[in-house]
Amino acid sequence: MVSLDFSEISGGTITTPSGYQAGAAYAGIKTYSDVFSTDLEKLDVGIILSDVSCTVAGVFTQNVLRSESVRLCEQRIALGRSRGILAVSGCANACVGIQGMVDASQATLIASQRLNIEPNELLFCSTGVIGVELPMALVDKGIQELQISSEHGHALATAITTTDKRTKEIAVYFELDGKRVCIGGIAKGAAMIHPNMATVLSFLTTDASISNELLNKALHIAVDLSFNMITVDGDTSTNDSVIVMANGASGTPELQDASEEFTMFQRALSHVCEYLAKEIIRDAEGGTKVIQVDVMNAATILDARLAARTVAGSVLVRSAVYGHDPNWGRILAALGRSGCEVREGTLALFVNKICIMEDGMPIPFFKDAVVAAMESSNITFRIDLKLGNHNATAWSSDMTEEYVRLNSVYTT
Amino acid sequence: MVSLDFSEISGGTITTPSGYQAGAAYAGIKTYSDVFSTDLEKLDVGIILSDVSCTVAGVFTQNVLRSESVRLCEQRIALGRSRGILAVSGCANACVGIQGMVDASQATLIASQRLNIEPNELLFCSTGVIGVELPMALVDKGIQELQISSEHGHALATAITTTDKRTKEIAVYFELDGKRVCIGGIAKGAAMIHPNMATVLSFLTTDASISNELLNKALHIAVDLSFNMITVDGDTSTNDSVIVMANGASGTPELQDASEEFTMFQRALSHVCEYLAKEIIRDAEGGTKVIQVDVMNAATILDARLAARTVAGSVLVRSAVYGHDPNWGRILAALGRSGCEVREGTLALFVNKICIMEDGMPIPFFKDAVVAAMESSNITFRIDLKLGNHNATAWSSDMTEEYVRLNSVYTT
Repeated sequence: MVSLDFSEISGGTITTPSGYQAGAAYAGIKTYSDVFSTDLEKLDVGIILSDVSCTVAGVFTQNVLRSESVRLCEQRIALGRSRGILAVSGCANACVGIQGMVDASQATLIASQRLNIEPNELLFCSTGVIGVELPMALVDKGIQELQISSEHGHALATAITTTDKRTKEIAVYFELDGKRVCIGGIAKGAAMIHPNMATVLSFLTTDASISNELLNKALHIAVDLSFNMITVDGDTSTNDSVIVMANGASGTPELQDASEEFTMFQRALSHVCEYLAKEIIRDAEGGTKVIQVDVMNAATILDARLAARTVAGSVLVRSAVYGHDPNWGRILAALGRSGCEVREGTLALFVNKICIMEDGMPIPFFKDAVVAAMESSNITFRIDLKLGNHNATAWSSDMTEEYVRLNSVYTT
Repeated sequence: MVSLDFSEISGGTITTPSGYQAGAAYAGIKTYSDVFSTDLEKLDVGIILSDVSCTVAGVFTQNVLRSESVRLCEQRIALGRSRGILAVSGCANACVGIQGMVDASQATLIASQRLNIEPNELLFCSTGVIGVELPMALVDKGIQELQISSEHGHALATAITTTDKRTKEIAVYFELDGKRVCIGGIAKGAAMIHPNMATVLSFLTTDASISNELLNKALHIAVDLSFNMITVDGDTSTNDSVIVMANGASGTPELQDASEEFTMFQRALSHVCEYLAKEIIRDAEGGTKVIQVDVMNAATILDARLAARTVAGSVLVRSAVYGHDPNWGRILAALGRSGCEVREGTLALFVNKICIMEDGMPIPFFKDAVVAAMESSNITFRIDLKLGNHNATAWSSDMTEEYVRLNSVYTT
């Protein structure tokens, strides 16, 4: 018996699911907060730890130049079981040669000794400046100082931030056989890559019982609908990682593929990922609006995804949104170059539900109404291709002068 | 006997080759010059005309949503001979349904009657606002008013501009059997697509004698090294067109493939295209610097081109250049996501000849020297992949707050 729907838990975070603790400390690795000043507490080393060994799955950057931290995660996830993740912000541990793997291994060795767990069961994520070696003395100091507790999920959410103006945290639950199954998550990312800094990290926890294979399947589906559908500058970082751990502490039976229970788990996990991904867009550097692009009735799902991402990522579309300019010519130009199958004669376009184009022809519209609609903090462009039955949604933020200012600042 | 090298002709333009005349008029189609004010004369209808029928070749936008003007050009170029091109700026004649072809045909009919030539031998290019029908009464007025003369090449260069701050014009010559062979060209484009406006047009003329097939081959080679290697926002317009006409008026023998003479012609044509393409980058909306990305020793030519274009087009790299920030992590992140084969351990990176990375490892460099180098108005990034022997160069401009301001302005 599974409940009809999942619910969000007020104040929920990564330690909301049963059997997880977190901790964070400030070791002095993150020193650039004066550039991107935020009100967030200064924390730069953190750990999420499960009381027991977990099944685990991860999705990582497609960039061929990737951090050794990512490589270490992939190797250890392949072993099948994890107890937790050590995270460092302020240093990407990328483009530093083989020292990157030496340091990542050493960091997890130190932390696993402190926590009395197997080193191979500890993953490692890093985010920050590229081309700088991990300051191992500081990492060691941070690991020794952090206090592990189920109360410290928010502190970990803070510790993984770089240029973020706020933390991104959520937890949801649903009921299964009278027991609560909970999924929690945190993410970091300010949508833009700050000078030399890596972008997205997200850690997800659940007390569901689920195999590695099924967890991996669920994570890929959720990420494809969320983190893979946000786009700002088109630059994939060297460190992007989304990792989910499942410890079974809810005491519910193991989820089975194609079951009603797994469907609910998938929906809840997808919601958690979508919420965190959209939080990244809402916190975008210099951004003032969330842009949603719905592509409807594409010939294939790949077409729908490609078109939605291309339009959402267009610098010109994003600049127009900043200026409340309903210049749909830019939307069409981006759609036309996306590689998606498009037939001009069947195309329809809506800006916040106002129809701008039908059957490939501009139709008269009340421009003031569209401009007024674009003053909203959420702009939705709906493109109806009328070629098939595949839909996709992508999100972005507007392009502002503030973004350029932030992203042209010296790191050096 | 062909000369050792080609030479630029001071003040040269599209009517510099023998047997070409041009004309331009202001019909009132281009009404947005108050938004992007320039010192250019107000002209918006123009013609380039050869005294005799020409061989002809064209390269057009890859956007699947394309102007009917582009379609008409393709159809008429396929017929094999052209006398000239009618051009209109201020209206793209794109996304207006079948009316686009009706109007394009009608415009060339009116002009061909005025000029007493075959309508099928007149091409048509348009650039400007998308989704608006051609104002045919104004187009007619402009055609009737323009005066054709070999002195009016500069006027035509002005008439095709939209948000450009200056015209782009060049002519070069080389000697063949004691006679001068000349190639002239003009282009328009302010690197960014202005709200709803299309980007690149370029018209090239030569008095060489050359077959359609060989002219087509030469144009594709030249465009691949020039217009196809400039990138700013990644948005391909609906109207991009590069057209070359050859009238044989130099009286030199027909160029033969694989000959010394054709090699010289190819070099000269490639130079004309590269000059015009770089002029577009120098005139980029809001841009303050020209960024050149040289990718050396890639495994394949496709890899080299892809990597150069991806790095040059990265919003983050371009923002960093604006701020004189030598944050090479962004260059690597763009390189790594480009799809180009990269081996981290062999990678070298130079900023204006200063080595930043060797064998995939950051090397100590004097940051002040790099920052000082980046204050130059021309920044060159050289990426040496050391995987093969294929090289490519791409150009872009820096990303500035002014760009965002210009591109968020109302069109409506």
